[in-house]
Amino acid sequence: MPARLTSPSSAPVRQSSVRAHNLALVLHTVANSTDRPSRAAVAAITGLTRATVSALVDDLVAGGLLTEVEPPPRTGAGRPAVGLAVSAAGPAGLGLEINVDYLAACVVDLTGTVRQRFAEHADQRPADPGQALTMLGRLAARARLAAEADGLIVAGAALAVPGLVADDGLVRVAPNLGWQDVDAPALLGAVPELADLPITVDNEANLAALGELRVTGGDPTFLYVSGEVGIGAGLVLGGELYRGVRGWSGEIGHVTVFPDGRPCRCGARGCLEQYAGQEALAGDEPLAAAALGIALSAVVNLLDVPVIVLGGAYAPLFATLRPGIEEELARRVLTSGMAPVVLRPATLGPDAAMRGAADTVIRAVRDDPAAWLRR
Amino acid sequence: MPARLTSPSSAPVRQSSVRAHNLALVLHTVANSTDRPSRAAVAAITGLTRATVSALVDDLVAGGLLTEVEPPPRTGAGRPAVGLAVSAAGPAGLGLEINVDYLAACVVDLTGTVRQRFAEHADQRPADPGQALTMLGRLAARARLAAEADGLIVAGAALAVPGLVADDGLVRVAPNLGWQDVDAPALLGAVPELADLPITVDNEANLAALGELRVTGGDPTFLYVSGEVGIGAGLVLGGELYRGVRGWSGEIGHVTVFPDGRPCRCGARGCLEQYAGQEALAGDEPLAAAALGIALSAVVNLLDVPVIVLGGAYAPLFATLRPGIEEELARRVLTSGMAPVVLRPATLGPDAAMRGAADTVIRAVRDDPAAWLRR
Repeated sequence: MPARLTSPSSAPVRQSSVRAHNLALVLHTVANSTDRPSRAAVAAITGLTRATVSALVDDLVAGGLLTEVEPPPRTGAGRPAVGLAVSAAGPAGLGLEINVDYLAACVVDLTGTVRQRFAEHADQRPADPGQALTMLGRLAARARLAAEADGLIVAGAALAVPGLVADDGLVRVAPNLGWQDVDAPALLGAVPELADLPITVDNEANLAALGELRVTGGDPTFLYVSGEVGIGAGLVLGGELYRGVRGWSGEIGHVTVFPDGRPCRCGARGCLEQYAGQEALAGDEPLAAAALGIALSAVVNLLDVPVIVLGGAYAPLFATLRPGIEEELARRVLTSGMAPVVLRPATLGPDAAMRGAADTVIRAVRDDPAAWLRR
Repeated sequence: MPARLTSPSSAPVRQSSVRAHNLALVLHTVANSTDRPSRAAVAAITGLTRATVSALVDDLVAGGLLTEVEPPPRTGAGRPAVGLAVSAAGPAGLGLEINVDYLAACVVDLTGTVRQRFAEHADQRPADPGQALTMLGRLAARARLAAEADGLIVAGAALAVPGLVADDGLVRVAPNLGWQDVDAPALLGAVPELADLPITVDNEANLAALGELRVTGGDPTFLYVSGEVGIGAGLVLGGELYRGVRGWSGEIGHVTVFPDGRPCRCGARGCLEQYAGQEALAGDEPLAAAALGIALSAVVNLLDVPVIVLGGAYAPLFATLRPGIEEELARRVLTSGMAPVVLRPATLGPDAAMRGAADTVIRAVRDDPAAWLRR
């Protein structure tokens, strides 16, 4: 019904959506500046009028998203204008991770700085999902309280799990935790100190890959491999996480490397996980690097991915694993003679998934500051 | 220099680009109509004025891209308007394929109908690239002459090869043909009857996947597997062919299925090609379906691709191969219990690559009819 689009009642909607767009534009402009731009500089970059920029900046400062700082040194004449920077004392993201042998929580502020970090090492497999998520919830509550004592406001939480996650946050299956159809947001939200927070859930390798992409910048196309007891992968193609049609991509731990090999928890035989998972790494058969090399060669032959990032437990073992992996890549990738594959350790190390999780919260605030200001 | 954008000299450029856009819009509108729309119907669909549509249609009819036909039957009063259809007597695409044991050429008209088809079965491996491409060029010349005797005008040629192709049409490597750095467009263009044609080259599995996507419509995300002496794959994600960063994706034939298995021409051991390539299919060890199932399980675990299309020599063997492949998929794909993978034979059968090649020529004309009219 096109008539509705031009009716007077829609005008305020459109004005508020323009304002929301411009608030995000101003916030991004300041965040992406290498110096501390003045209101006039933001106006020049965005093409908005100085009056519009000033009004938007005032709202962002009042809402704790921007802060006024010393201007950058200038050599010309005239009084230097006040500079702007993203606030380190406003909204923050709570990043959570549960894995087979640890629980962890961190708080990251709007500038991307990790302000709190808590971790507990304990085997989660005997615990039922409710117990495990209650333990994690208590750790998260400690991180939140510490951050809020430090002047931050936690805007939301995101949880990284080693499993397949549906759009609504339901963990469909996490084989190494023994979870099936676990409503993780509800169980976490049952911890009283978290009851008011929006909570999202995603696969840990996906979040780690997003962390690697966004927090560190870098290559637009790579495979992130996360070595834990299970092995997951996050595939970034042209700057976008490729989730697959149903969100189930990246299950590299269940790629077959030896068809008649060791039985896997998933029911198959010879899965990569049985040769290069954390438990196999602790054993005495040195198959991890070769098995990884065989599975990664399949990825490169199929997808022509030029960069592979090793994260999780693989990050600290990078130097040990590298020669064996590179030997298999050189032998098994059809194009290895034309252009070798670049192998590197995760920049964020073992915290990548949790950092990526916190970053999704921060990014949501930065992408829609109007929603934060309306809260 | 923004000033140049508003200078009077740029106005004709912009006008001609608007006309080019509108010519394509009108041609696509007619092509995508299930009936034979009148000029007035095209104006109503596109939002262009009837005068503009009439002028554009006149140019497209004069250029052999559209034709005037009987109007669809109508029940209302008034004289029925003349209908429009894509012309079956205008520009056409020459699709070529070279593989280890055959050469083939087809001509497809603008409506997508195959008008000529020539194939020769002969082992190309002893031949050097120049000899092989001269033989193919002669076959292509016969197809072109037959098509032109039938009133068509061949607009260009596209060649499908079982190998890695650079952007400029150079075949970097085609292991099963024994080719390395072969300038296929130049060698084909040396055949006098083809000297005037634009010639492009692409990987045969990529072209077959595009053919499957465009010619038959259907699933937006699938893996097309082309079984020849070598095995290639074309990966379509969300309606787009995923070529990889350097255009080298889809080398499923060199995915390892048995790490210490049979030696492959590529230098590795245990490549899929050695168990499910055409020569292995002709042998007595019935490993083809299991090997395919192992490699395809890796694809699904990594990419969450819901549909696999078997083409080339696999299309006629589909019923034989299916149970063995499905058994491995059920066992090895982590999510097989949640949603089984759909396996189906290629709709275009063994001609898919050649049809896809011809379609790229047709599509180029349909996407930029102005360039064709200017020729």
